[in-house]
Amino acid sequence: MKTYITGIGTTSVGEHWDKSLRDLALEAAHQALTDAKRSPDEIGGVWVGSMLSGELSGQSHLGAQIAGLLGIVAPSVRVEGACASGGLAVAQARNALLAGESKPVLVIGVEKMTDHTATEVTGALMQAADHEAEGVFGVTFPALYALLAKAHMEAFGTTRAHLSAVSVKNHANAMHNPKAQFHKEVSQEQVELAPRIADPLTLLDCSPISDGAAALVLEVEPTDRSVELAGIGIGTDTVDLASRASLVELAATRRAAERAYRVADVTPQEIDLAEVHDCFTIAEVLAIEDLGFVEKGEGGRATARGVTAREGRIPVNVSGGLKASGHPVGATGVKQLCELTLQLRGEAEARQVQGAEVALAQNVGGSGGTAVVSILKRI
Amino acid sequence: MKTYITGIGTTSVGEHWDKSLRDLALEAAHQALTDAKRSPDEIGGVWVGSMLSGELSGQSHLGAQIAGLLGIVAPSVRVEGACASGGLAVAQARNALLAGESKPVLVIGVEKMTDHTATEVTGALMQAADHEAEGVFGVTFPALYALLAKAHMEAFGTTRAHLSAVSVKNHANAMHNPKAQFHKEVSQEQVELAPRIADPLTLLDCSPISDGAAALVLEVEPTDRSVELAGIGIGTDTVDLASRASLVELAATRRAAERAYRVADVTPQEIDLAEVHDCFTIAEVLAIEDLGFVEKGEGGRATARGVTAREGRIPVNVSGGLKASGHPVGATGVKQLCELTLQLRGEAEARQVQGAEVALAQNVGGSGGTAVVSILKRI
Repeated sequence: MKTYITGIGTTSVGEHWDKSLRDLALEAAHQALTDAKRSPDEIGGVWVGSMLSGELSGQSHLGAQIAGLLGIVAPSVRVEGACASGGLAVAQARNALLAGESKPVLVIGVEKMTDHTATEVTGALMQAADHEAEGVFGVTFPALYALLAKAHMEAFGTTRAHLSAVSVKNHANAMHNPKAQFHKEVSQEQVELAPRIADPLTLLDCSPISDGAAALVLEVEPTDRSVELAGIGIGTDTVDLASRASLVELAATRRAAERAYRVADVTPQEIDLAEVHDCFTIAEVLAIEDLGFVEKGEGGRATARGVTAREGRIPVNVSGGLKASGHPVGATGVKQLCELTLQLRGEAEARQVQGAEVALAQNVGGSGGTAVVSILKRI
Repeated sequence: MKTYITGIGTTSVGEHWDKSLRDLALEAAHQALTDAKRSPDEIGGVWVGSMLSGELSGQSHLGAQIAGLLGIVAPSVRVEGACASGGLAVAQARNALLAGESKPVLVIGVEKMTDHTATEVTGALMQAADHEAEGVFGVTFPALYALLAKAHMEAFGTTRAHLSAVSVKNHANAMHNPKAQFHKEVSQEQVELAPRIADPLTLLDCSPISDGAAALVLEVEPTDRSVELAGIGIGTDTVDLASRASLVELAATRRAAERAYRVADVTPQEIDLAEVHDCFTIAEVLAIEDLGFVEKGEGGRATARGVTAREGRIPVNVSGGLKASGHPVGATGVKQLCELTLQLRGEAEARQVQGAEVALAQNVGGSGGTAVVSILKRI
């Protein structure tokens, strides 16, 4: 059985002080339903991905909450896997179709983060790390990813300039994405002279705190504008870094990718473009290696050479990525699939990658405890 | 394709001040794996149901967290639907099997609540209600269920004594459950003279704040001691009470039950015993009506007549229910299925219902925004 993305919807990403969690979710959901030409009463299930709705908006039970507001009485579920909540929600919805649900299903990813201070949000995000082994010691996510960056530099000669190349590229890409959080190019020098957050990472290596939502409709029958969701893989690793066998890869990405490539029956060489989880610049370097786009250890150098540029061999994060288009945590995994659907439909306008047939999204939870890899095909 | 519960595990329920969230989850998981004779490397996926792990234990990302500690690298997901988190997690895991996962999968429900004051926990639980339409006005769950009780009394002549009968029965049942939180019989007079929480509900109408975990292994092939998980239905309704068409039923229960009965191909008359979500006594009254065990409006009178007693026509909450065996929120939906598996295996010892062949569990989120109904069969 095959599954298809038949409708997509995304809010702009940024600081939406005039909109609540539910406003954002409903805006994206209504867009997706309209795009799929589906009414709420045709929907067979609702999956909502969100990490911090309870902590930051006082609202859990988000499946029923959003379904109820949409007038949908079908089964509803909230899925949480830190920053991979959106990707996991899509995977659960796809399972429901493969398990026999015959009606279209709706997936929504949403996060509302900017009503709180950066310190409060950074603290709440630490729930994605191992609380007993990492959180209680005061470490933050920039620090965890800084450790990964240091290990990669040490093992493979990755440089500060290689990390900067990720940020420069993604900020340039976001200039062509009207819904991106930032429309501001940055230079290598600006990245390196930005305030240092956790050595070697500066502020411009870090994705921002964002509000936003994304939604999509999945069905078992294609429509004239749909794309195939050809495979999804979920990979798991220990949540804490200290228990891992290696700090120069995210094994969860590798595991998720193996599964996704097998289910979709494609190889890394066949991927025409990808949206990957660049929550920090080093994360994109790891991703393009762990997904098999470049050799292990070559991610930094390949980025600096332009391999992943919009005109390069494999364009990565043409949307601007998490770094520049924003990272509304629970929405990100769904938003990536919306972006790739636009690309495969040929509707990505100024950022269109010509002739794209096969696309890949990689969505990571925490420092790599979870990874979700999804593969889309033009039909 | 059929699915089977091949192993179960439960912690005792109560105030586990010496155990953390993960300690409880791992204890139940190891029991279930041992009971199923499965090792971690045989497991094809992990689903964890928990409502408040982030808010009360600083730990989200619980799928990967628990999978990693178990040494499982298979896909992992956390599912949240308020007090129905456990039931929803089982439904997602079952979907994965029906979607083609051939390896056994593990479901864990867990909640760690007693490290906080009752006021803090009651506040956190309000995330299960509609934050903007209910929470911000200061209402609590006892108040929401008190409204449902008042409406039922008004519509059907349900009395204070009928509600007390639920509590008296469930406390008596828990005397035979060694893992129950309370081993203390209560009289009708004690229920009615207990401190009034929200009129007409007293303290002894309310389930307690609990720590605990439950786990089960699901497979597509039966073993010599397994029971069939013959059907699950998820029902959704508006989260806020004010938007509902009726306050004298939980429509989500009715919707979930219709689906579960259809999938399992059984009628309410064929159910030999049930575990239902008696977070408050009125909830059990509503449940036995909405599940079709008694006529609408007759739940209170039927309970007082002993219809749902251990020796009655349809024994309900032989475990002691949420009221007396405890309500570790995210664990409850899984714990109910563990109890019914014991019963269908004939291993429930002093509380065994003789000759039970078909059993039903009903797990509710919030004030009925979500309901999950599961039906088990002896094989």
